[in-house]
Amino acid sequence: MKKKHKVTILPFDTIIEVQPRTNLLDAINAANLPLTAVCGGEGTCGECVVQITSGRYHSKPSAALSDEIVSEGYALACQTFVEDDLTVVLPRFEELSIRSVVDHEFFDERRDLISGIYEVDPPVQKIDLQVEAPSLEDNYSDLKRIERALGKSWPSGNISCEYSVLKKMAYAVRKDHGKISIVLARLGGSRFIIDIFPQSEKKSVCGLACDIGTSTVALHLVDLSTGKFLGTASSYNQQMKCGEDIISRINYSQKPGRLEELHDLIIGTINLLIKKASESAGVPPADIYYAAISGNTTMIHLFLNLNPNYIREEPYVPTINQPPVVRSQDLGLDLNPEARVSCTPAVGSYVGGDITSGLLCTPILLDTEKVFLFLDAGTNGELVVGNKEWLMTCACSAGPAFEGSGIKCGMPASEGAIETIKIDDKGRFGYEVINNAKPKGLCGSGLVDLLAELFVHGFVDRNGKFIERTARNKIVQTENGEGLLIVEGPKSFWGNDIVITEKDIANLIRTKGAIYSACSMLLKSAGLKFHEIDSVYIAGGFGQHLDIENSVRIGLLPDIERAKFSYLGNSSLLGAYLMLLTDKNHSIVNKIADQTTYIELNTEPRYMNEFTGALFLPHTEMDLFPSVKKVFDRIR
Amino acid sequence: MKKKHKVTILPFDTIIEVQPRTNLLDAINAANLPLTAVCGGEGTCGECVVQITSGRYHSKPSAALSDEIVSEGYALACQTFVEDDLTVVLPRFEELSIRSVVDHEFFDERRDLISGIYEVDPPVQKIDLQVEAPSLEDNYSDLKRIERALGKSWPSGNISCEYSVLKKMAYAVRKDHGKISIVLARLGGSRFIIDIFPQSEKKSVCGLACDIGTSTVALHLVDLSTGKFLGTASSYNQQMKCGEDIISRINYSQKPGRLEELHDLIIGTINLLIKKASESAGVPPADIYYAAISGNTTMIHLFLNLNPNYIREEPYVPTINQPPVVRSQDLGLDLNPEARVSCTPAVGSYVGGDITSGLLCTPILLDTEKVFLFLDAGTNGELVVGNKEWLMTCACSAGPAFEGSGIKCGMPASEGAIETIKIDDKGRFGYEVINNAKPKGLCGSGLVDLLAELFVHGFVDRNGKFIERTARNKIVQTENGEGLLIVEGPKSFWGNDIVITEKDIANLIRTKGAIYSACSMLLKSAGLKFHEIDSVYIAGGFGQHLDIENSVRIGLLPDIERAKFSYLGNSSLLGAYLMLLTDKNHSIVNKIADQTTYIELNTEPRYMNEFTGALFLPHTEMDLFPSVKKVFDRIR
Repeated sequence: MKKKHKVTILPFDTIIEVQPRTNLLDAINAANLPLTAVCGGEGTCGECVVQITSGRYHSKPSAALSDEIVSEGYALACQTFVEDDLTVVLPRFEELSIRSVVDHEFFDERRDLISGIYEVDPPVQKIDLQVEAPSLEDNYSDLKRIERALGKSWPSGNISCEYSVLKKMAYAVRKDHGKISIVLARLGGSRFIIDIFPQSEKKSVCGLACDIGTSTVALHLVDLSTGKFLGTASSYNQQMKCGEDIISRINYSQKPGRLEELHDLIIGTINLLIKKASESAGVPPADIYYAAISGNTTMIHLFLNLNPNYIREEPYVPTINQPPVVRSQDLGLDLNPEARVSCTPAVGSYVGGDITSGLLCTPILLDTEKVFLFLDAGTNGELVVGNKEWLMTCACSAGPAFEGSGIKCGMPASEGAIETIKIDDKGRFGYEVINNAKPKGLCGSGLVDLLAELFVHGFVDRNGKFIERTARNKIVQTENGEGLLIVEGPKSFWGNDIVITEKDIANLIRTKGAIYSACSMLLKSAGLKFHEIDSVYIAGGFGQHLDIENSVRIGLLPDIERAKFSYLGNSSLLGAYLMLLTDKNHSIVNKIADQTTYIELNTEPRYMNEFTGALFLPHTEMDLFPSVKKVFDRIR
Repeated sequence: MKKKHKVTILPFDTIIEVQPRTNLLDAINAANLPLTAVCGGEGTCGECVVQITSGRYHSKPSAALSDEIVSEGYALACQTFVEDDLTVVLPRFEELSIRSVVDHEFFDERRDLISGIYEVDPPVQKIDLQVEAPSLEDNYSDLKRIERALGKSWPSGNISCEYSVLKKMAYAVRKDHGKISIVLARLGGSRFIIDIFPQSEKKSVCGLACDIGTSTVALHLVDLSTGKFLGTASSYNQQMKCGEDIISRINYSQKPGRLEELHDLIIGTINLLIKKASESAGVPPADIYYAAISGNTTMIHLFLNLNPNYIREEPYVPTINQPPVVRSQDLGLDLNPEARVSCTPAVGSYVGGDITSGLLCTPILLDTEKVFLFLDAGTNGELVVGNKEWLMTCACSAGPAFEGSGIKCGMPASEGAIETIKIDDKGRFGYEVINNAKPKGLCGSGLVDLLAELFVHGFVDRNGKFIERTARNKIVQTENGEGLLIVEGPKSFWGNDIVITEKDIANLIRTKGAIYSACSMLLKSAGLKFHEIDSVYIAGGFGQHLDIENSVRIGLLPDIERAKFSYLGNSSLLGAYLMLLTDKNHSIVNKIADQTTYIELNTEPRYMNEFTGALFLPHTEMDLFPSVKKVFDRIR
């Protein structure tokens, strides 16, 4: 028998052993990892591209890859055969591992905005105590003497002690002659001692803020004594291989054993990120005592191993909206076994904890009665309108177009993504690429720019169709039909043309139309007009470089004063971080969830009319977009 | 290789496989079970007697066993060889499995006494709810709708839901169209939903009251909806093989892995009893949702897997006196995994939860200011004096003599034990045997009777020595020297003489002296005299047939009005049972533990004087026992 080869697959850190000369795509699929080739392994579509960073392999040449990138170790998995131990990177997954977290500078800007609720008094923290030595006259039990020492600095009351802590107590109070540290969790009115150790074991007490997105998972490791970031990590949600959207995950979960599988995949994803973040910060996972988790209702159900089935069935009732605090050991998270895990509360099945968490990042709770609109446009668009007195919300199925999915050259906002684009008077495209790399494709903000520029410069009409007269010179043939050329093959990373097709544009228009019409319906329900809105907060998938002007031009955002718009970035993660800082924020977010009224668009007949009207650039009723009308009239 | 034989050893249900012709004592010891032969396996001492109830064996004849009992399958293990699959009963252990529980009739008598705190409102109970069906207009989460239904009958407030319950919730609320049962635990101020099921699963909700004694373990299975007994079981504490008393168990626990071993043995003992009780009652262990555990401080530490080492080291500080509520799954108990386990609180290292639990059975909390003395005389004697305003306690090392240990023909109060004894004018012994069986030995109450009768009838002097003149005719030779014959061999179960030696009597006098002098010291500390005591409650090892008159005659109990004495039986178990009935009783017992002042006798120089004075029959100072003096003066 020949010696087997070990194939290490990144970013999953999955290792599989295969026979020599195994096809690499087969090997990756055997490891249960989601890499596909729409061409059926013919080597033409380029979807199964991988980068091999170590080891020998044999790869058949393919037109889908330029010589340059082949020389950098890129290859089509379907055309490659294993001849050695290999390290293989799946670039599509690695892309999703970058940039989806709040960057720290951006966060510091936001801090001013939310300073009213920015306070560091973490619900889980380390407390140093000096416990008096016992004597025959003062021979209270160890626990009693600890409670007495604790009572000096903390108002007394009902403090419980975890059973696991009792086992370490006798040793801890004697080791350093009564100098101990305890970890106290004060959550939802109850107080628990969840760890104890002698002070000479200088352990830090850390927290984890985590956003579980349907596509990506991102987390921050935080020092709970200061609120400072210690590390950060993000990746693809490993559940992606079981379906790309919420409904397909719910369907997947209904067969025996599969709910457990989805649960294990998300726990596995998070554990991998914990490992990365804690290694880079030099903090052992056992020092992490608190985790605040944010995510949509389905993600939270799968995270908690709860059947999500009734979320998709009328009347759309989840098992829980406000999950109780759970111990990490009950979930299998690689934290301290006694770590407490809090999930942000949902309003309902389709407006989840990611939204309430995002609302925590707005100045909603400062003393203001101004009305704001909050907009999180991911695969599902969620909207909230209101102020500190009232809140109304709705959800719409926007589709993943602005996340780069379903768009031929779409991609997440990571290295190589065109994030801004401009067409000059001569019809030439100018663009900026993330990290100044060779362009690989377009991310959300790039797609918004592109659509606006194509529209304003007369390359597409109000229906989103190419205008023969102007676009003719830029049209190229692709496997998916005609496409408008944006970047020529030799200038692109993959060596292939970057194009946009009419199908792509139709997808983008459907998405922006769904969001705009949902905004419109929500405001009508609240008896408001767009100009009555004082602020618009944009969260989620667009990244931080969305051009407001262009968003208005395509009819994604309403045509109101531009200064009213601001970005929140990944506010789901930022809100989870705020939950780590003080338990008051948990109470606030629970109150937000309780007080928000959900408007069901699916049962609202007017919504379809609104939607149909929005399937134009910028809208059937041009009068709704006066500033766009002005530009349009001037250009045409 | 020859086929091995399977030896099943009862009451442990231990099965071991041995080679044909293995010595049975070796086999039993190889199974790690505590059976010894002080004669070193010579077949003379009779200590290793077993009863073989099935299978063929070869046994050498021995003078230690009568032909009659040999014909019933009794044999000396050291003289027996395995020739078949065998079922072997160890009678000494089975004896400890009987009679140590409160019998129900006796309990009913006590009920009147304690009726002030006898109330059935169990802290863990089943609640049937009708949860409204969700609709598009009323689409609150499952948990929210359950809380709403619960709020109708139970004052709202902070009710938490166990994570394990969430997983079953979606199914349970839909199965019977909203007709569900929940199990609600209200303990120490917090309220938890610990189980949920559709009403068509007609589960009962049961509780377990358990007394962990150093020698024996006893439990009651209780229907929590009515407070009724469903079953009961008791046995030897399997930890016995690691040492017979508390100090030897603590010593044993100090080597690596042995704390865990002792913990596993007590959990194993209790699980066996749970199995027995639940099988006989036809209740699955998963229906048991609450356990109240009573025991001394060391037993509770070992039960909770906590290092008991500091209990025996000055200043005698345990890890905990008031253990927190623990989940059964954390301990490995075979109950519902979410069952709550409460332990009765200790006053300190040497006055444990068995005593506070016992105090719960006295009328201490009724509106009375009368002063009582509570006396639990097991291997360790514990005493409490006080009333509802104040309580003082002390402990003394009494020794296990009245439990039948260290006495040649001593035995626990089970079938075959002489429990009362009388000497007539002609010096003839009359006795009563438990279950009217052939006598095997004497239990505590029999030993008290015997000592009093021997003293009053002039067979022993005030030092406990045989009086040659009267005792001469009854003296027989034994391996341990001279003994006074009580039952002749042919009339006894084992076919051997039942005797008492001077060494036995010295043991009994030490024990009664330790208890009396501790009572005396405790009263002096409280500034009281014996006649100022209004009631004396006797708990624990003596069984229910202790003769008060005889107890006073030997100087075990003070010479006060006899009507002031009453028995509580196994009040540790009874108190645990009361804890099942209402959480108020837990608060009461915590208050008792908090308010009791512990008096350390070991550091009290006067205690040794008191003790020395008590090493006579009834005491050096005969004036302390006027009624005994009168009898003594009349007889001599």
